[in-house]
Amino acid sequence: MKKLYGIGTGPGDPDLLTLKAVKLIKSADKIFAPNNRGKNMALTTAQEYINEEKLVLLDFPMGQTTKKTYKEAMEKINDLLEDGQNGVFLNIGDSMIYSTFMNLVQANEKDHFVFECVPGIPSFVAAANSIQKNLVAKGENFLLADDPDRLVLDGVDSVAILKTSKNLKGLLEKLEEADFAYYYVARVSFPDQLILVDKEEILEEKNYMSLLLARKKSL
Amino acid sequence: MKKLYGIGTGPGDPDLLTLKAVKLIKSADKIFAPNNRGKNMALTTAQEYINEEKLVLLDFPMGQTTKKTYKEAMEKINDLLEDGQNGVFLNIGDSMIYSTFMNLVQANEKDHFVFECVPGIPSFVAAANSIQKNLVAKGENFLLADDPDRLVLDGVDSVAILKTSKNLKGLLEKLEEADFAYYYVARVSFPDQLILVDKEEILEEKNYMSLLLARKKSL
Repeated sequence: MKKLYGIGTGPGDPDLLTLKAVKLIKSADKIFAPNNRGKNMALTTAQEYINEEKLVLLDFPMGQTTKKTYKEAMEKINDLLEDGQNGVFLNIGDSMIYSTFMNLVQANEKDHFVFECVPGIPSFVAAANSIQKNLVAKGENFLLADDPDRLVLDGVDSVAILKTSKNLKGLLEKLEEADFAYYYVARVSFPDQLILVDKEEILEEKNYMSLLLARKKSL
Repeated sequence: MKKLYGIGTGPGDPDLLTLKAVKLIKSADKIFAPNNRGKNMALTTAQEYINEEKLVLLDFPMGQTTKKTYKEAMEKINDLLEDGQNGVFLNIGDSMIYSTFMNLVQANEKDHFVFECVPGIPSFVAAANSIQKNLVAKGENFLLADDPDRLVLDGVDSVAILKTSKNLKGLLEKLEEADFAYYYVARVSFPDQLILVDKEEILEEKNYMSLLLARKKSL
């Protein structure tokens, strides 16, 4: 058997790695990470615990990944891990939230592979802690989305919107119409973390690593 | 100044503590934790890093807490921390998700207090990793709730329901009507973690530390 761990590395602060993630990264036979044009946040986060000789970067060209991409990546992982060895695959945030890892699991065709997933701190959870606003209190509900529907927004108390860069203005207007107060958080957990609430200031920012948190004004 | 950290201790596995949580618990002048009739999961999770001499249990009688409860707890914390000292308050999961900590922050009346929140792994994130199902993939949205509205359920792809013990049967039926496939996860991340998908088996279980994860059958 070969084992591949999907490891959530959290929002970026190395101290927000879990003890389990650190132990598994240190003891892995191979460390796999997506090669995101030289910028790899998961890798940077875990750098202190990575033996470079064990590191393998895998290409997932943004916007161009297909089933074949994941199948080829799994074949490469299979070739590089010997029987009885453990590999770790590093994901930004958590592996179950807008992530690559489950695509790899689904692309696997070898029955000698075992998968295990280790949760990481999602960016929106870190951001709520930074602004010190509940994601959900008793009796409330919370929506996580990348392009929320207006009707659904009307039915929830709190929302996090990830990948905001494509249509930031439209998203802010949608939140205003549904009577939400919002916070824009960029580079959460990094020393240069930025929190904005002013619409004009938010629209001047263009940060890929950003998200919106919002709560109904009536709360 | 006095500083109080709200620390998310995650779902229960001590290895799912973050490095930051461990460092702060070890270096704290006082460690505060809710006293839940002797059962305190946050405390058990962090036990290895707790100096018992620094530990203070605070009473938050379940279902009977009021603003006054939190005000009195903050006064006790204020009395026990000297100027310049740091305290940590331990929360199950994450402090921004159905938690006590923001009630304390809101009850604070002293301007010499600074608060900082350190995120923890939420139970539903750990559970999604355990069952290896995405909470959200690209283009999908996810709802976190304790009693979801049927109309909102129709508008989301994926859902986590916490605190399921009160009306488990009703919740399962609501999920079935809205065409969700569900997983019941009890004691997530513990050695005796239990995952069930059969309705009758789920209804025979009565575990306070349980949650439901569900995804639309069409996905």
